[in-house]
Amino acid sequence: MRVTAILRKKLQQQKVDGILITDLLNVRYLTGFTGSSGYALITRKQAVFVTDFRYQEQSRQEVKGFRTKIECGERAGELKEMVEVLGVKKLGFEDHHVTFGFYKRLLQKKLRLKPLTGAVESLRIIKSPFELDCINRAIRRAERAFRKLQPSIKAGTTERKLALKLEELLKEEGCKTIPFGVIVASGFMSALPHARPTNRVIKKGDLIVFDWGGEYDGYYSDMTRTVAVSGKDIAKQREIYYIVLEAQRKAIEAVSAGIKATEVDAAARKYIKQQGHGENFGHGTGHGVGLAVHEKPYVSWRSKDLINENMVFTIEPGIYLPGFGGVRIEDMVVVKKDRAEVLTGLPKNFKII
Amino acid sequence: MRVTAILRKKLQQQKVDGILITDLLNVRYLTGFTGSSGYALITRKQAVFVTDFRYQEQSRQEVKGFRTKIECGERAGELKEMVEVLGVKKLGFEDHHVTFGFYKRLLQKKLRLKPLTGAVESLRIIKSPFELDCINRAIRRAERAFRKLQPSIKAGTTERKLALKLEELLKEEGCKTIPFGVIVASGFMSALPHARPTNRVIKKGDLIVFDWGGEYDGYYSDMTRTVAVSGKDIAKQREIYYIVLEAQRKAIEAVSAGIKATEVDAAARKYIKQQGHGENFGHGTGHGVGLAVHEKPYVSWRSKDLINENMVFTIEPGIYLPGFGGVRIEDMVVVKKDRAEVLTGLPKNFKII
Repeated sequence: MRVTAILRKKLQQQKVDGILITDLLNVRYLTGFTGSSGYALITRKQAVFVTDFRYQEQSRQEVKGFRTKIECGERAGELKEMVEVLGVKKLGFEDHHVTFGFYKRLLQKKLRLKPLTGAVESLRIIKSPFELDCINRAIRRAERAFRKLQPSIKAGTTERKLALKLEELLKEEGCKTIPFGVIVASGFMSALPHARPTNRVIKKGDLIVFDWGGEYDGYYSDMTRTVAVSGKDIAKQREIYYIVLEAQRKAIEAVSAGIKATEVDAAARKYIKQQGHGENFGHGTGHGVGLAVHEKPYVSWRSKDLINENMVFTIEPGIYLPGFGGVRIEDMVVVKKDRAEVLTGLPKNFKII
Repeated sequence: MRVTAILRKKLQQQKVDGILITDLLNVRYLTGFTGSSGYALITRKQAVFVTDFRYQEQSRQEVKGFRTKIECGERAGELKEMVEVLGVKKLGFEDHHVTFGFYKRLLQKKLRLKPLTGAVESLRIIKSPFELDCINRAIRRAERAFRKLQPSIKAGTTERKLALKLEELLKEEGCKTIPFGVIVASGFMSALPHARPTNRVIKKGDLIVFDWGGEYDGYYSDMTRTVAVSGKDIAKQREIYYIVLEAQRKAIEAVSAGIKATEVDAAARKYIKQQGHGENFGHGTGHGVGLAVHEKPYVSWRSKDLINENMVFTIEPGIYLPGFGGVRIEDMVVVKKDRAEVLTGLPKNFKII
């Protein structure tokens, strides 16, 4: 109930009597509910979770600290009634999640509304020891799966086969979902930061980018490793690999509680630019990971986020040379007082297979 | 380009000069883009697709009939500029998708906006021959996967093992994604319409509900079969099975172009009620399936949808007896002039294993 208490303080500051939580990850964070339909209403004194018939049984098992109500009619109408019963005069809502259409239906019910951006996200950005434990377990699952995949990585197989195999291994490790379809991008395809696996056959001299993640109790992990296939001259592959690795090291070193996220991004970006590849690193340096695989803080040149203790995010610079290939190396870190602790344990030496 | 032409007619009717398409499935439907960030802007004369750096290469391969633009700044600001260049005075937007927060940022840019609900969804609800072909292929993949699973269904295995195996088989059939985590619910768990697989061991006398779907080129299928495990008296299991099957038959028979979706729902519901199980069928009878696994038309007692030719939806009544178990049988149908054509081909006799 500690987070609910912080949220209630916000209600006072924002001069609203309650907040409607509709973003399902925020609902899960607060209530424990893992289903796909439901919302929470937190007032200064009450905490209600609302779902429908299908999730009656499940919510009974999962939801703690909230009174559960089963909705049977039209959502806006039932919400209006409940808000009146609870004595809420002004209701905050998640304006980054509520659609304009639903907002209008609420207005038609004569609800007094106030948009509150990121009220729950600002709590989620700081991870509790329980959450850190889940994230660590999600990392371990992803690492074990990758280790088991390694014997299959060789010239002659395809991106798709490797991706499928890695997804199966993740499931075998116990991941109920995976954060995103595993990326295996080889040869010229590895120059596409978000390539999806194709039937391309792995060849000698290829760079292969693996970008994947695991899950534990709803929490995700996210990591990237790039390997090279032997049998051809791979001097250039090695060269860009070590530039990316050094850029990553500099970004990790830059982390400290109290700095701006842009400073972490700049540390990696500046080095890559100095090495003449400024044009070939088009994405941000990292992003928060938790119940969502992309969440605050965002570590890029346009981020407004501040870095604080117990935030968890990725550090993943890359260099992408069109038509040739790319390298990306991604670890997850947790912020300590004056440094980053790297959570990802897989080795980062230039691996030639 | 036919759908773009219909959409342009709507622009005229709605007195707007363009429409902003942000829902990613709608974007995919119109442009062919399968990535996870981008939007489309369709004016009376132009069609522009906008994405970011990461999808430059991919959009080049996928997007047809649209001019592609790579965004590099803040979305609302760039959109404002583009809208001005294209001479759009009033812009329609998807109010069921655009968040209240983004709406406000667009207003701050002094854009004149008009909410348009379901402009693209009203096109998507009617399937083209190409889409029907994809859906049929998605069904065949799901059926082949289930047939391959059948030898593994027996007492002693667990729900989770069966679900994992079925997911692997779906991937092996070529499904790049699956519409939802495979449901395997056995014994008392089968009384939960949306149960997720657990480590529960399959026992003699169990009902087992399998609810799963396949994919082909972005289009989904969705089906449910319920089997019983021999070795105990299963008279009651058989009894409710045949009530559900007959309810399903009646709903399928009720389908005809021009009727209300509520009439299809009522056909199944009335029969289940007559048989004394009205309380044990709490969900709707079906839903449309296409690029989304749940889309229009919705076949329930509160639906406002009309049934028309070439709509595709599920018919999936169920009876759920708390503590005992449940039966659900789900087929997909396509609407012909005066009847439903059942697309799902798996047999529906009461299968005892």
